[in-house]
Amino acid sequence: MPSPAEQYYPSEPKAPIIKTPEVPGPESKKRLAELNDLYDCRPAAFMADYEKSIGNYITDVDGNVMLDVYAQIASIALGYNNPALIEATKTPEMIRALVDRPSLCSFPPTDLEKSLNQLLKFAPKGQNRIWCGLSGTDANELAFKAAFIYYKSMQRGYDAEFTAEEEESVMNNEEPGAPHLSILSFKKAFHGRLFAAASVTNSKAVHKLDFPQFHWPHAEFPDYKYPLHEHEEENRKEDERCLANAEKIINTWETPIAAVIIEPVQAEGGDNHASKYLLQGLRDLTLKYGIVYIIDEVQTGVGATGKLWCHEHADIQPPPDIVTFAKKFQTCGYFFHEPKIVPNKPSRQFNTWCGDPARMLIGGAIGQEITDKKLVEQCSRVGDYLFGKLEELQKQYPKKLLRLRGKNRGTFIAWDLETGEERDAFLKKMRANGVNIGGCANSTVRLRPTLTFEEKHADILIDVLKKVLQE
Amino acid sequence: MPSPAEQYYPSEPKAPIIKTPEVPGPESKKRLAELNDLYDCRPAAFMADYEKSIGNYITDVDGNVMLDVYAQIASIALGYNNPALIEATKTPEMIRALVDRPSLCSFPPTDLEKSLNQLLKFAPKGQNRIWCGLSGTDANELAFKAAFIYYKSMQRGYDAEFTAEEEESVMNNEEPGAPHLSILSFKKAFHGRLFAAASVTNSKAVHKLDFPQFHWPHAEFPDYKYPLHEHEEENRKEDERCLANAEKIINTWETPIAAVIIEPVQAEGGDNHASKYLLQGLRDLTLKYGIVYIIDEVQTGVGATGKLWCHEHADIQPPPDIVTFAKKFQTCGYFFHEPKIVPNKPSRQFNTWCGDPARMLIGGAIGQEITDKKLVEQCSRVGDYLFGKLEELQKQYPKKLLRLRGKNRGTFIAWDLETGEERDAFLKKMRANGVNIGGCANSTVRLRPTLTFEEKHADILIDVLKKVLQE
Repeated sequence: MPSPAEQYYPSEPKAPIIKTPEVPGPESKKRLAELNDLYDCRPAAFMADYEKSIGNYITDVDGNVMLDVYAQIASIALGYNNPALIEATKTPEMIRALVDRPSLCSFPPTDLEKSLNQLLKFAPKGQNRIWCGLSGTDANELAFKAAFIYYKSMQRGYDAEFTAEEEESVMNNEEPGAPHLSILSFKKAFHGRLFAAASVTNSKAVHKLDFPQFHWPHAEFPDYKYPLHEHEEENRKEDERCLANAEKIINTWETPIAAVIIEPVQAEGGDNHASKYLLQGLRDLTLKYGIVYIIDEVQTGVGATGKLWCHEHADIQPPPDIVTFAKKFQTCGYFFHEPKIVPNKPSRQFNTWCGDPARMLIGGAIGQEITDKKLVEQCSRVGDYLFGKLEELQKQYPKKLLRLRGKNRGTFIAWDLETGEERDAFLKKMRANGVNIGGCANSTVRLRPTLTFEEKHADILIDVLKKVLQE
Repeated sequence: MPSPAEQYYPSEPKAPIIKTPEVPGPESKKRLAELNDLYDCRPAAFMADYEKSIGNYITDVDGNVMLDVYAQIASIALGYNNPALIEATKTPEMIRALVDRPSLCSFPPTDLEKSLNQLLKFAPKGQNRIWCGLSGTDANELAFKAAFIYYKSMQRGYDAEFTAEEEESVMNNEEPGAPHLSILSFKKAFHGRLFAAASVTNSKAVHKLDFPQFHWPHAEFPDYKYPLHEHEEENRKEDERCLANAEKIINTWETPIAAVIIEPVQAEGGDNHASKYLLQGLRDLTLKYGIVYIIDEVQTGVGATGKLWCHEHADIQPPPDIVTFAKKFQTCGYFFHEPKIVPNKPSRQFNTWCGDPARMLIGGAIGQEITDKKLVEQCSRVGDYLFGKLEELQKQYPKKLLRLRGKNRGTFIAWDLETGEERDAFLKKMRANGVNIGGCANSTVRLRPTLTFEEKHADILIDVLKKVLQE
């Protein structure tokens, strides 16, 4: 039986095709320079031709065809020009979602309930409600709003009325209506780039320099030794150190902590994994102190770690209060289960659009394809295969594959080089040899292929990797 | 020659059809209750059937067909199921934008430049660059990021490097890397509901209660006497009082003011108009103090005030530094013109998606239709016609049309009732008589029809209004 990639993409290239000595080539450079006069696209790696991209291969305007293991910063679930998604764009529901975009919570459409139920089919275990936004940052900030409102409602009583003092003071951005509360996040975390999100983001200075932040704390994040199974005792101590640090902050920070947010793998901050022990320890701490527990699955979610949601590896009990999603789901927002996370009064968690119904339809179609084609199971299998090959390569080039990580985490794999310069040069060489690949943190290489990435694609990645390492 | 509405919607209803004694009817109520278990839709007025909605008429699940002068909180430009927009959903570019959603500034698509140039054709006078986001709130917060980065870059020199102290302190959310700077906004303003946006929003306590805010100031907003031409002298004094108040805050606030943001009409806060004198006065103040001047056109933009952008009525010189857009443009973001509003280094104003190319295509098509069908000119003409009719009604029912405002501002018209209860009852009666209409602030009625609203629609609105007023 043909594999999912063969079913979707019978004409997918068999190998990369490279036509210019480096990527970006001359046509990319010329057109990016033009575009840059209108739109700041200085971070661009090349200009892509999506019409000619297919499955796991991205094509650029110079005709270079690259195996894509970066996939739009981990946000393409099924590959380029997926036929099932193309079908999903042609339905009457989609056309209406595009031309008659509703204010979803003011004049909800007849098909919204179906659309939401379709998304909820793919909710993490223990979650059965949803709220939608428009980006990963938006998802996290909406979760913070829910958390602050819930935290205060538990203090004053869910059904209690606001005091006149609260209603007046908030109009001056002052206490008690605008309470001094914090969100606890972790060093090296990335949760987005608007103002509250930036206050919990701690990956790179350039992400947040020059704009005001909330004075919220960052706890220590574990720095594990790899391979994990050879360093269990030391890593457990590292977890305990970090949990103790988080608890100390909870007890001593200048303002009360209303919520904790953590990524199961810090994916911009260098693919730093959180252990089951750490994630459960934070659940215990948040219960002990009456704090909302938010898991940020924006980059880790939707299958790439070998579970639909990465934190399901940790089987956190009871389940986290809020789980945020975006990127590969294409639709954004958060799942939750506690009915009182819905604010006591209408219009507190509200805006004109409350999500994008077109992107919800795409998200629902992606979830269905992942289920029907068993793509999470495939990703787990292919990830194990790929990781084995990388372990072999690591033996040969130990300094080029430092701290290889992501074992048993599907294709969500990363390693370090010794310096940022070396890493940047490596990424460039990989592209020039036909693999579009991404970095994170200062000197990390991260793999983020689609869920239709198979063993044959892994073999090509390994071949190119060997070639580049040999040079 | 057929009118634009006749061309677009040959089968548009000739009048409302009401089938249930009140709106929402029983089917709406039942289905909203079901939906509410998944998604907090308590603000919903009814459940809409967009398949059966057409042009200026919205149909609900009980079969009620209402003239819609609210249009998804002012966000439908051309009417429901517009044939030109339906065509725009079927292009290969749209299908790719939906299934291959790119990281626009990392791997930009070949058609991005065309798409952006199409949006820039409709930029306000004096603006020639663009940055895109995903909602009105996002547009404003992205504008704040640009403003803070620009403000600091003017202090340290555009090309100056960050200091080690800045890079270290920002990781602790502390000065100087996370500077203590403010945005000045106005009382009764609405600029959105995330954390920085909420800090400049001042319309209703419920919009922002219980979440932390930045301690940013709100200046006095003019409270004009209407009709404006009968109270010129008093209103000029009111402008001067508010400008003096803004200048005092700029000189005395606890942190430096990096930007001023204002709506040309405070559209959530009660349709409070800013005069040409006020808007120019703020331009003069911002120049005097080296402050970024941001005009929020999220609700006022895209034609409804009889100019494509409402602040063009004021002919501000030199043009504002940043103009934000969303809602009826369907795509969101900001226009600007100063090249140094682009940050000195890449990736400072950046995120995974940097806008939604599908919504950009819709925005471009909306702009083109507005131009081709001369819909701004039509809106101005129809608005004048409607305002005249309302002035007549006001003579008959002076206490039911208090402070009628929006003369010479297209269909962007509002009036007050004496109390919030009376206003709410009025809106309900209007719906029960076939007109879907919205409120704002405590006791204001606001008209926000589409740009395909014509004299014949205005006549129906007036007829229903008369009937409800007579009751």
